[in-house]
Amino acid sequence: MSEQTTDIEKLQQLISHGPFNKWLNFTVLNAGEDGVEIKAVWRDEWVVNLERRYTHGGILAAIVDVAADYAIAARIGRPVPTIDIRVDYHKAAMPGDLTAKGRVLRIGSQFSTAEAYIYDQDGALIASGRGTYFTAASAPKVPLGNASGGE
Amino acid sequence: MSEQTTDIEKLQQLISHGPFNKWLNFTVLNAGEDGVEIKAVWRDEWVVNLERRYTHGGILAAIVDVAADYAIAARIGRPVPTIDIRVDYHKAAMPGDLTAKGRVLRIGSQFSTAEAYIYDQDGALIASGRGTYFTAASAPKVPLGNASGGE
Amino acid sequence: MSEQTTDIEKLQQLISHGPFNKWLNFTVLNAGEDGVEIKAVWRDEWVVNLERRYTHGGILAAIVDVAADYAIAARIGRPVPTIDIRVDYHKAAMPGDLTAKGRVLRIGSQFSTAEAYIYDQDGALIASGRGTYFTAASAPKVPLGNASGGE
Amino acid sequence: MSEQTTDIEKLQQLISHGPFNKWLNFTVLNAGEDGVEIKAVWRDEWVVNLERRYTHGGILAAIVDVAADYAIAARIGRPVPTIDIRVDYHKAAMPGDLTAKGRVLRIGSQFSTAEAYIYDQDGALIASGRGTYFTAASAPKVPLGNASGGE
Repeated sequence: MSEQTTDIEKLQQLISHGPFNKWLNFTVLNAGEDGVEIKAVWRDEWVVNLERRYTHGGILAAIVDVAADYAIAARIGRPVPTIDIRVDYHKAAMPGDLTAKGRVLRIGSQFSTAEAYIYDQDGALIASGRGTYFTAASAPKVPLGNASGGE
Repeated sequence: MSEQTTDIEKLQQLISHGPFNKWLNFTVLNAGEDGVEIKAVWRDEWVVNLERRYTHGGILAAIVDVAADYAIAARIGRPVPTIDIRVDYHKAAMPGDLTAKGRVLRIGSQFSTAEAYIYDQDGALIASGRGTYFTAASAPKVPLGNASGGE
Repeated sequence: MSEQTTDIEKLQQLISHGPFNKWLNFTVLNAGEDGVEIKAVWRDEWVVNLERRYTHGGILAAIVDVAADYAIAARIGRPVPTIDIRVDYHKAAMPGDLTAKGRVLRIGSQFSTAEAYIYDQDGALIASGRGTYFTAASAPKVPLGNASGGE
Repeated sequence: MSEQTTDIEKLQQLISHGPFNKWLNFTVLNAGEDGVEIKAVWRDEWVVNLERRYTHGGILAAIVDVAADYAIAARIGRPVPTIDIRVDYHKAAMPGDLTAKGRVLRIGSQFSTAEAYIYDQDGALIASGRGTYFTAASAPKVPLGNASGGE
């Protein structure tokens, strides 16, 4: 398993390649051994409650998954299939772009664990979570696929 | 806490009220004491991997959250804020509508647990998971909000 | 991967082989394609709160892990390393033996998902949860090991 | 909800009060706004695999639960009922005492989220995880109780 850090530009290409990640409109702000920082651009369709206007938990789960996955991608050069994710909701996300920081907890030859934290424009912690990812050298033929926008 | 079952029509109204649930295009197929069954209509934007065309794990997480939440709504008359969710990915979801079954594990006066299973058009299990939901009579003033499309 | 069911006697041998599982005093009551049923014998040391006498959540987590793991063992002939577990607590467990049912959600060639439900002597649901397990044919040289009492 | 930090001595009393926490033989090493650090003393019964001698995942889950719970206790003055926990296993824990760091992710008036990391004597990360805890001012009459050793 290659451990060289993947640069921001390559991660940006990978993340923008898939339709749902494009819809979430991700920008890779930072990437390195320590993790990644990505931004998602708010859109009207994110809202779950018309009156109160806060964002759907499924959108936050998707952002947690992608940020954790790309923290692994920054290490091994490609996003990987998600085995499972868990997300804690800390605060209602009101309209506005969101920033997420992803960090690797452990890289393994078969599976890996990474976490992510989502912040709103005031820097408040909105949601956070963790995922287990499949990092064996050869992906299974029918991948579970998830956050993995790349090949 | 009211325990009468909420009928399909009212659940359909509640679920269709919020923009992201509308975008996921949910139909409530069944609802009762035992849980709910909902359908989400596939759309191009769900895809995470352009070449292999399978669905983003964030979409599946959103559907698990909504199905589990509405299993509670069928019991207590309203969707509730999500405290945390956990999703296991079992099989790549190829293009096509998805059906989800939600079921209550435990209704409590403060918080409740529910689970959901997502199936593809061939009846194969795609993903499943659980959530903890906030079911105290008066919701917190700033709800964590998530799958909760209603008031 | 062998899929023949492992019989109760062999599972009992495997489960009784490790010190902590012996301390939890497990009896395998049933085992088959559909899952396993095991019993754990209550002991004074399980208590977390001296006055109210209910059981520590760590004990319940251990039982969930073992029941889910042995549901897989009943299918593939051996307990396997746990990658992650998640446990929901539904009701305080008062002194008394506990019964747990384990069930496979998905067997995969690399990792598998199983769930378990713990009941008290009155049949009330006490806790339940899920785990992701490492089921590749050759275990990693330094296993994460957990519920795996066997070789 | 009181937010003053609870001192090490009081936390030590609370943690030593319950039989299973006593069996795990916890020492509170540090406690403050930022979290707690606790030590658990290895014992023969922790072993899951007689030949390889590594520690049962249920023991690690109990330590994660207690460290996360006591990070909350350090803030609000008492351990609290666990609603759910999730544990990731990173490395086999060989015989030897374990140290755990607990940290609060969010304190809420109804429920809170905390996390914990377990290290072996060489400082290697063995397991880590998170829990959702019930922090309403008045505990439910029949608590789910778990890591909560105190009154």
